[in-house]
Amino acid sequence: MDAVSRIEQALDQAIIQAEAPGAPPGLAAAMRYSVFPGGARIRSRLCVAVAAACGDDDPALADATAASIELLHCASLVHDDLPCFDDADTRRGRPSVHRAFGERLAVLAGDALIVLAFQTLARGALATPSRLGVLLTSVGASVGMPLGIAAGQAWECETEVDLSDYQQAKTGALFSAATMAGAMAAGAAAEPWRLLGERLGEAYQVADDIRDVVSDATELGKPTGQDAALGRPSAALQLGIPGAVERLEHLAADAMASIPDCPGAAPLRALIRLEVLRLLPKSLAPTARTLVAA
Amino acid sequence: MDAVSRIEQALDQAIIQAEAPGAPPGLAAAMRYSVFPGGARIRSRLCVAVAAACGDDDPALADATAASIELLHCASLVHDDLPCFDDADTRRGRPSVHRAFGERLAVLAGDALIVLAFQTLARGALATPSRLGVLLTSVGASVGMPLGIAAGQAWECETEVDLSDYQQAKTGALFSAATMAGAMAAGAAAEPWRLLGERLGEAYQVADDIRDVVSDATELGKPTGQDAALGRPSAALQLGIPGAVERLEHLAADAMASIPDCPGAAPLRALIRLEVLRLLPKSLAPTARTLVAA
Repeated sequence: MDAVSRIEQALDQAIIQAEAPGAPPGLAAAMRYSVFPGGARIRSRLCVAVAAACGDDDPALADATAASIELLHCASLVHDDLPCFDDADTRRGRPSVHRAFGERLAVLAGDALIVLAFQTLARGALATPSRLGVLLTSVGASVGMPLGIAAGQAWECETEVDLSDYQQAKTGALFSAATMAGAMAAGAAAEPWRLLGERLGEAYQVADDIRDVVSDATELGKPTGQDAALGRPSAALQLGIPGAVERLEHLAADAMASIPDCPGAAPLRALIRLEVLRLLPKSLAPTARTLVAA
Repeated sequence: MDAVSRIEQALDQAIIQAEAPGAPPGLAAAMRYSVFPGGARIRSRLCVAVAAACGDDDPALADATAASIELLHCASLVHDDLPCFDDADTRRGRPSVHRAFGERLAVLAGDALIVLAFQTLARGALATPSRLGVLLTSVGASVGMPLGIAAGQAWECETEVDLSDYQQAKTGALFSAATMAGAMAAGAAAEPWRLLGERLGEAYQVADDIRDVVSDATELGKPTGQDAALGRPSAALQLGIPGAVERLEHLAADAMASIPDCPGAAPLRALIRLEVLRLLPKSLAPTARTLVAA
């Protein structure tokens, strides 16, 4: 089975647990809506790809780890879209969860998805329970305090913000968790995989800034021009589009160079090159010459 | 160290992790405010009491488990008080978290407390890692879907609700988790401890209904008369105060009778009798004759 099918199946199995008899139907539906159909599943595919590069000796755990990371990502989107934060009407081309199900079920869907993510890890680690503690610690750190997604969102409520700390917490932490947890799920050391996740997280942020300027709302599935409208920091606005594409290429090169020696290093490098290209709007991909030519 | 000191210390150690360097100060403060000063800590004290009755062979894990249950309870209160749910201005005699810190930090404090609860479990299980999986699964089930606190809150959004399912999810599930996880933290089987938690959860619900009618807002630390005002089901309104006290006594008797054979059964029974009496408003405690006389 390919990586995407493995992830979709693991996510479906997780959501089915939440839908078991006795579940309140509204919240069950809101949780499924929050997760399916998904976005690019980039974090979870990265996790599975690293596990594969490390030998993937426990595919069930790799899948569960990838699913837990995706569930946490989805939870963060649902809460980030809430009226008190971004007040987003749309997400992935359709109404945001609170628009479709109401604010109460959106809050609860986020909460229940966070819990489900950790339950999914525990279920996935049945065959290799000794890996659960480090996985939980690493994945938990990437979404909690002081340096995970919740911390990143909380920096938006502060008056003095270090931009790099903010982006590392809001976006980078879950990318690092994806690469590190992918390695841990395959029984490999996590630390050598941190830099790959950090660089890809930065690359994703830059690509997101570019898409916010260049894409239209239909292509993006959510409103565009938000960074300028909300005064948010943006590589595309600071460096211009060609400068931002160049920055993306540098980050991708750093990411690929950081891949540790492992059985699957070469295919992983090729995969990452393609993934980074996919992050760009179609019209801009040919301008990322170092990635196209590699 | 007594149970209360152990729990307060474990909670403080957990919150200190969230306050580590790099943390956004507003969210760190909101998390501490959500947890300290606490309420009666009844769920976490129950967890430690059951671990003690089972021999308490790993006190660090018992404390961490109790702390994780208390953190999850606090998270549920913070989100339950939000404007889209109960819109509560006060909690424990002072402004609710969203009144004190704003709605965004209240949402994030709840999220980060949920994550911290699971991280606390993982940290506590370092000496006996084989217990982490079952603990995480049990504690997770009590707060997630389909039968935990999030499910209980979600039933408030449905038109057709089974009252007993609703109360079991909203209140009973975390009480059952407290007794069962207390046993698991001490290496004992969980299932024999389920009934104790369920009955105490019901007793707590009945006592809560009584306090909502009999107490004043100063004694309770939150508004009273909410059940009648919001049309919520209430044992005190359905059975009258004497009938509700009698129901509480029956539940307490069932709870004490359900305690499995274990080294500390007798002191646990005595503790539970006192705890249930403490749940009643002072003016009513003498009317619970079977508990006073025992």
